[in-house]
Amino acid sequence: MNPAASTLRALLNPRSVAVYGASSDPGKFGGRVMRFLLQHGYRGRIVPVHPGAAEVLGIPAVSRLDTSGIPVDACLLALPSAHLAAALEDCGRAGARGAVIITADFAETGPEGAARQEELLQIARRHGLRLIGPNCLGFINPQLSLALTSSVALATGPMPRGAIGLACQSGSLMASLISHAQDTGAGFSVAASLGNQADIELCDLVEYFIEDEATRAICLYVEGLKDGRRFLELARRAHAAGKPVLAVKAGRSEAGQKLAQSHTASLAGSYAVWAAACRDHAVILLDDPEALIYCADFLVRCGVPACSTVAVISPSGGTVAVTGDRVAAAGLALADPGAATQDALRALLPPGRLVNPLDVGGLPRASGLDSALTAYELLARDPAVGAILIAVATTPQLEDKVRQWGRAALASGKPTAILLTPGTLVDGARHALKEIGCPHTNRLDDALRVLRAAIDYGAALRDSPPRTAAEGNPAGTAREYAARLPAGRLNEPDTKALLRACGIRTTEDVVAATVEAALAQARRIGYPVVLKGVSRELVHKSEAGAVRLDIPDEAALRAAWQAIAAGLERHRPGAALDGCVVQPMLKGGIELIVGCRWDAQFGAVVLAGSGGVLVEILDDVQMAVAPVSVEGAKRMIGRLRIAPVLAGARGRRPADVDALAGTVARLSELAAALGPRLVELDINPLLVLDAGHGAIALDGRATLTG
Amino acid sequence: MNPAASTLRALLNPRSVAVYGASSDPGKFGGRVMRFLLQHGYRGRIVPVHPGAAEVLGIPAVSRLDTSGIPVDACLLALPSAHLAAALEDCGRAGARGAVIITADFAETGPEGAARQEELLQIARRHGLRLIGPNCLGFINPQLSLALTSSVALATGPMPRGAIGLACQSGSLMASLISHAQDTGAGFSVAASLGNQADIELCDLVEYFIEDEATRAICLYVEGLKDGRRFLELARRAHAAGKPVLAVKAGRSEAGQKLAQSHTASLAGSYAVWAAACRDHAVILLDDPEALIYCADFLVRCGVPACSTVAVISPSGGTVAVTGDRVAAAGLALADPGAATQDALRALLPPGRLVNPLDVGGLPRASGLDSALTAYELLARDPAVGAILIAVATTPQLEDKVRQWGRAALASGKPTAILLTPGTLVDGARHALKEIGCPHTNRLDDALRVLRAAIDYGAALRDSPPRTAAEGNPAGTAREYAARLPAGRLNEPDTKALLRACGIRTTEDVVAATVEAALAQARRIGYPVVLKGVSRELVHKSEAGAVRLDIPDEAALRAAWQAIAAGLERHRPGAALDGCVVQPMLKGGIELIVGCRWDAQFGAVVLAGSGGVLVEILDDVQMAVAPVSVEGAKRMIGRLRIAPVLAGARGRRPADVDALAGTVARLSELAAALGPRLVELDINPLLVLDAGHGAIALDGRATLTG
Repeated sequence: MNPAASTLRALLNPRSVAVYGASSDPGKFGGRVMRFLLQHGYRGRIVPVHPGAAEVLGIPAVSRLDTSGIPVDACLLALPSAHLAAALEDCGRAGARGAVIITADFAETGPEGAARQEELLQIARRHGLRLIGPNCLGFINPQLSLALTSSVALATGPMPRGAIGLACQSGSLMASLISHAQDTGAGFSVAASLGNQADIELCDLVEYFIEDEATRAICLYVEGLKDGRRFLELARRAHAAGKPVLAVKAGRSEAGQKLAQSHTASLAGSYAVWAAACRDHAVILLDDPEALIYCADFLVRCGVPACSTVAVISPSGGTVAVTGDRVAAAGLALADPGAATQDALRALLPPGRLVNPLDVGGLPRASGLDSALTAYELLARDPAVGAILIAVATTPQLEDKVRQWGRAALASGKPTAILLTPGTLVDGARHALKEIGCPHTNRLDDALRVLRAAIDYGAALRDSPPRTAAEGNPAGTAREYAARLPAGRLNEPDTKALLRACGIRTTEDVVAATVEAALAQARRIGYPVVLKGVSRELVHKSEAGAVRLDIPDEAALRAAWQAIAAGLERHRPGAALDGCVVQPMLKGGIELIVGCRWDAQFGAVVLAGSGGVLVEILDDVQMAVAPVSVEGAKRMIGRLRIAPVLAGARGRRPADVDALAGTVARLSELAAALGPRLVELDINPLLVLDAGHGAIALDGRATLTG
Repeated sequence: MNPAASTLRALLNPRSVAVYGASSDPGKFGGRVMRFLLQHGYRGRIVPVHPGAAEVLGIPAVSRLDTSGIPVDACLLALPSAHLAAALEDCGRAGARGAVIITADFAETGPEGAARQEELLQIARRHGLRLIGPNCLGFINPQLSLALTSSVALATGPMPRGAIGLACQSGSLMASLISHAQDTGAGFSVAASLGNQADIELCDLVEYFIEDEATRAICLYVEGLKDGRRFLELARRAHAAGKPVLAVKAGRSEAGQKLAQSHTASLAGSYAVWAAACRDHAVILLDDPEALIYCADFLVRCGVPACSTVAVISPSGGTVAVTGDRVAAAGLALADPGAATQDALRALLPPGRLVNPLDVGGLPRASGLDSALTAYELLARDPAVGAILIAVATTPQLEDKVRQWGRAALASGKPTAILLTPGTLVDGARHALKEIGCPHTNRLDDALRVLRAAIDYGAALRDSPPRTAAEGNPAGTAREYAARLPAGRLNEPDTKALLRACGIRTTEDVVAATVEAALAQARRIGYPVVLKGVSRELVHKSEAGAVRLDIPDEAALRAAWQAIAAGLERHRPGAALDGCVVQPMLKGGIELIVGCRWDAQFGAVVLAGSGGVLVEILDDVQMAVAPVSVEGAKRMIGRLRIAPVLAGARGRRPADVDALAGTVARLSELAAALGPRLVELDINPLLVLDAGHGAIALDGRATLTG
């Protein structure tokens, strides 16, 4: 373990803690921290630091730590901004391992706050202290009965101890999740809120959790990653260690991105890139914070489905119908139990009932409960069933029945989600499940999330491990070519030259500066041709009328040139027409978009998507962190909605997917090699011809930085 | 009010009730019914009917009703199957208005059960009795403190009284929803479970609720409608009365359809048709039963948004970021408050914060709570804000703060959804809201459903009322033409002739029985041509290679004929090739599918969708109950994903949407006129040419019954 990681371990597992700003007033941050430390029975030594008081809540206080002679691992600073620097110096001199800074108003409020934050960070670095925060709510380590937080979630007990490691870029969400865990019976190895991540960031916690024996599942609330590539490497390690990583990330919408920035000074990056990176690295991406706990707890306590199918069972005919519909809508596959299971089930059921989803309501009175349980056990023993959802309805003797279901679920070894209805009527049943250690949910939405997450993680475990992105190795000529290019937007010919330099086929076209030059060019390549206006000031050529297709002869070419010039003048008055490109008019094939971007979190990423008319109506883009291999590119292409068309559906000839994948892979290598210099590049369209005939970039544009 | 409706009113509002199968044992259906009648303090007279006992739970019993001389409005029959007929005769002779039959094992189990059910229905009809059930759990009428049900949901009290009318085709779902309402503070005018709907069906209840003054919102759990057209007419009446109708329907998936059949003997019909019919008739369609109550209760207690925008406010930066993302993902529009509101908000907030979604966390201590409330009130007063979501996080003094939020929400008159976190930590806040009569949800999923439903209903109220489908009025020739057609599958020429008879343009093609006839035909229309094999045994011509496009000359046509014959022999050995159709090869335009179906619930429906290659990758179909007007057809077309392409996106020429809409409308009239005779008809493709050039059916097939 590196020294920084070992210091973090000491900070999260302290033998003693100091509280700056300790108070006996629970209305104050330092008052709640002291109260929770005592209330939950922290096993180490507590040292209140207070300028005047001799004791706080009965615990002897010191006025400064460095001269006290008391060895302290972790310090919590609940102080006004102005006193933080001095306190941090004191921590450092006293030899503490780290500090938690709760105070807000730092980088999240702008450049001045960022400067104040940097100052604190420098003090910490000088002393070898590690920092959690600022602008956070601290952490809990239930293994040590340690609550080093001001969060009101700790006002009630007991502290939820368990195997979930939680790193959370929001203090109040951490509080909600601790409270949620208390209710559901889930628990944490450590739950930490990270605030502005001045020093310790999410990846540090992920690394800690991977190495921590008490942690068996890792939950993250992310506003922005400091180092996306490190996160992916850690995701690979977590996969290898069999510890699922589950994440919720803010910034899917534009509003969410701005909020992440103003909340914890985080650059959210592209959500689409994040989602693609998570999928490729077996990170379970969720849309709801409480669902993190539901899903992680299910994986910890119920295990991982061995195959990707679901059986549904309920004693309510209405519930089972609704649940069957929702399971299908969630894209989960209903299990098809084996013949022996089906026969055994049919012997229990009235005629005409489905075996999955299975309505076990109204079975003959004498055998009612037993039949329902027997049916569950038959399904649980069937290897064709990956996971089971028991949707419990309100029935007489609910509590007893639910306890039996729960015991059977835990005993079966088959991951089984139990869904109760909300409402106090069912509180007894909820309590019964908590008592026997069986997780449950109260809303179908959450039950479906749990099943989806468990099944996806199971599939990821059976899949080969996430691949390490190969180092970029583009043709040297591409790198050299790019080095000569100026910053700013590249026009079509320059973009295509860059593409050719890395081995991507393009139409060979030169810019004709005059209509006469265009006519000569057209004679050389033969009619019909395409004429495209070239101007640095044109972003969407088609909107300015600057693309003219299928030009049959010289007269039409002259007219097209005039029309392009007039269109540009209308669209961008005063803009210079640098000339026009003359290209052969290619027919047939399928148009795609292939491109790359520089992402704030993950760096170079590559994308492929449906092009042409489909762009407007299909949201059909796949992304991956660059570079990708040809195999990786094929996996991306296989996930496109247009994939069946590429593969040759309904008697259509298959398209040249090899050439398409080769183009994606080459472009991804270029993107990885050029790094932040290449802001974005789009091949639009890439014409993918019939199998064996290749793919060819018909148009392209790019933006470079200096 | 018609006599049947007035009898239903008497049954649901009885002055006295008789309980057949009354018992003092709460383990029995009749025991629970008796217990709940007493426990909730039903204000009318209770008459236990028991063959031997003089009293049940202290209430004098009778052995039969007809000779007792006691006038009874409602009878509940909790008896074994064998005793039902006699009991029902007794009810009838005694002059009761109706009966509730809880017993199961009728139509839901197959033909024998259906016969037993029919027998009971005949007895009821003979006596003018109305029936609820069989295979149901009865009903509650909280206005009368009447629980005429065996559902354990009534074991705890009080009975939730309110303005929601619930008709539920599942007893146990009704039970869950009663329990859910008890918890959330929602309440019912009447909540009834309908079971197999032998007599009284959902529409009867909807009609009752429209006329019932105590009901202000109507909730339905539907497995299958007996009469879809009646439902739509009632939906129109409910819209006119300002009573929202909210529905969950089973049968979206294949499994759900089968389950609805085996649960309450319901034919689920096509879910797509149902969804389209709901959208066109302002019925709020939900995917979750509990959400019915959340959404209806919100509309009853918080009112209807005056515009379709949402403001989000939360004291947690993390929560507000996640919530902002989910609001966007749910397709809800974030409100853009007016300049005055923005200025006033910015005066309260630290620099850099968004005004919507609005993070009111960490405002200066002295003004913290007041500032947050002031911010809410500023948003609530802004007419650019339709509804508000307050996502409450865990903070100190949570209960007091939530009470203040709740009071402000109720006082503001602005529909405001309050979201609490789950967990006992927040139970105090939950209780505070219930106390002041303010609804809330505990999961963001539900808060979003509530907002979506309220905003959709608001938009529907502002929209013109749902239109009555005009009577079908196809050209008489179409009806006459169809009358001459045999039952079974129609080939392409017959289908096109039927289309032409109702004024739809098609390619004019005759079947050429021999290759020589085809050559003659091709000479007449000019090359290039299309050649299509005709055989009743061919469903997908393209898969059998029976469609040959762009045939340039005579030699190619001869070869194409050979290839079609060979392809048919491979695909369907022994099938007869009836000949081939020769058509002109039309280029350009956009291919769509237009068709009609006979639906089990709604009868004739019409559909329009993307055709060609898009069929494989886009789920792009819109449906409507037939007939539709040209305007109605245009609304369908406007909702297609391909609509921007039809309208002429990115410099493309607009397509002839008028001609497309005309085709849809004409086909819908044909479907309505032919009724169940026309099982289905597909025009695939309909080639929609550029605006002004029309639309033309290139291929078509249909199925008729005898």
